[in-house]
Amino acid sequence: MADLGDGQKLDSIAIICGGGRIPGVVAEAIARRGRRPVMLAIKGWADPEIVECYTHHWIALGQAGRLLRLAHAEHCGEAVLVGALVRPALTQIRLDWRTIRMMPRIIRSFAGGDDRLLSGVAQLIEEGGVRVIAVHDVAPDILIPEGIHGRYRPSERDNADIARGLALIAALGAFDVGQAAVVANNHVLAVEAAEGTDNLLVRLADLRRQGRIATPQGVGVLVKAPKPGQDRRFDLPSIGPRTIENISRAGLAGLAVVAGSTIIADPAEVTAAADRAGLFFIGVREDTAR
Amino acid sequence: MADLGDGQKLDSIAIICGGGRIPGVVAEAIARRGRRPVMLAIKGWADPEIVECYTHHWIALGQAGRLLRLAHAEHCGEAVLVGALVRPALTQIRLDWRTIRMMPRIIRSFAGGDDRLLSGVAQLIEEGGVRVIAVHDVAPDILIPEGIHGRYRPSERDNADIARGLALIAALGAFDVGQAAVVANNHVLAVEAAEGTDNLLVRLADLRRQGRIATPQGVGVLVKAPKPGQDRRFDLPSIGPRTIENISRAGLAGLAVVAGSTIIADPAEVTAAADRAGLFFIGVREDTAR
Repeated sequence: MADLGDGQKLDSIAIICGGGRIPGVVAEAIARRGRRPVMLAIKGWADPEIVECYTHHWIALGQAGRLLRLAHAEHCGEAVLVGALVRPALTQIRLDWRTIRMMPRIIRSFAGGDDRLLSGVAQLIEEGGVRVIAVHDVAPDILIPEGIHGRYRPSERDNADIARGLALIAALGAFDVGQAAVVANNHVLAVEAAEGTDNLLVRLADLRRQGRIATPQGVGVLVKAPKPGQDRRFDLPSIGPRTIENISRAGLAGLAVVAGSTIIADPAEVTAAADRAGLFFIGVREDTAR
Repeated sequence: MADLGDGQKLDSIAIICGGGRIPGVVAEAIARRGRRPVMLAIKGWADPEIVECYTHHWIALGQAGRLLRLAHAEHCGEAVLVGALVRPALTQIRLDWRTIRMMPRIIRSFAGGDDRLLSGVAQLIEEGGVRVIAVHDVAPDILIPEGIHGRYRPSERDNADIARGLALIAALGAFDVGQAAVVANNHVLAVEAAEGTDNLLVRLADLRRQGRIATPQGVGVLVKAPKPGQDRRFDLPSIGPRTIENISRAGLAGLAVVAGSTIIADPAEVTAAADRAGLFFIGVREDTAR
């Protein structure tokens, strides 16, 4: 069990790292607040360059026992799960004994969506004495706040498109899918599923080149929101400067994200990129849906 | 007004032709039943090779007056709208006077989804004395019937994926989007919006190559259904041999379409292609959703 009685030890926090840059952003934010990040990096997903800037250990998927031993040894009573974790192929999983004992429950989790899978994993970790907390709890400053960021404001039409996108994502909640949609002048142009936001935007740019999108250049919004009912301790949507570039190439007017639930890698850089591209960038309340 | 009193004249039927092969398939089916198809081909969308096999006239979008004059001159008291009609760019529209008088209503239609746009167009045509009917009324034999087509049957898991896909499409009904989705082992891998079914399947094949789809090869179903609440007189989903090829490349198990509401270009060819690829191909009732 984790020794939570010691103030000094409490300062360590485990970051269970999936792919992409976000684990590094979270680690940096945690360090800024005076705590010690310990990277528990998942082999095949976590990026070595990011992970190796901090105390780190590599673990294979399926090694819940090893993960908990490492967390305890590093005095981490708390953990956050961050970064992309594309549903694993079975061949990438290395089971240890603790995990094998848990197998029936893990198999049940697999039959649900990604969200249920992660909930199952979080429960396993908590039963091992490590509390799974949200990015919000340890690094609220990397979540996009409500309000207009940058120079440009959404138009009335953009606001209507934002509301429609949020409503669409809400309607998809039961299906554990869709953290993004593109709506242009009231038409739904794209709904995100397995492809991810960047692929979705590249597709829109292609469709526009092929003349398959009739809404004019500069109309339409990328709307990003957490899946409704999603446990916000993991798999929050994230954006970075590349998101802005892709929105610009797709010929849209701007970006709307649900405030407080979207991770941003470089706030200043993203806002500057939006300004340069003439795009609006807004954090909205989830209940803007209609 | 159309002269509907004459039996001989009643035998003509106008096919308002968008893009793709389906207008030809409908014309052939109408001719098989002893009626005379008259192609009213929309410039920029209809395929000349298909249209020119029959009595035909070219019309620009926006020429409701010319369309009605031609329908009456050719003794067509009825019309079907078939084929892809990607939302037009304004520059492709040539307005005639009748249409200009109707502009306020057409502009209102544009603000809705594709389905509302087509409803507006159908209403204009009916007010001009030409009844807009469904493919179902004139060529029911080109709609996919209920039941298993070909040699392969969906598994229990496939049936669950089909039900989930239908439920997802139903949930998207209010958004005038989504006539197709891919579900694999209960996970939603793709939702169709502006890209069309073929693009969606090509994307899945790409994601699989990139290792971004973890469900194994041979699991998952393409589910196609009309949009809920859609006026079935137009824009029915359609499939052909290429659909089967793309399903096979995407590594899925098969294809499920809502019976009686999906047009099939070459039934025998599609079934043979499914058999060759080892895919099931089933027409299901819409209330299979769950």
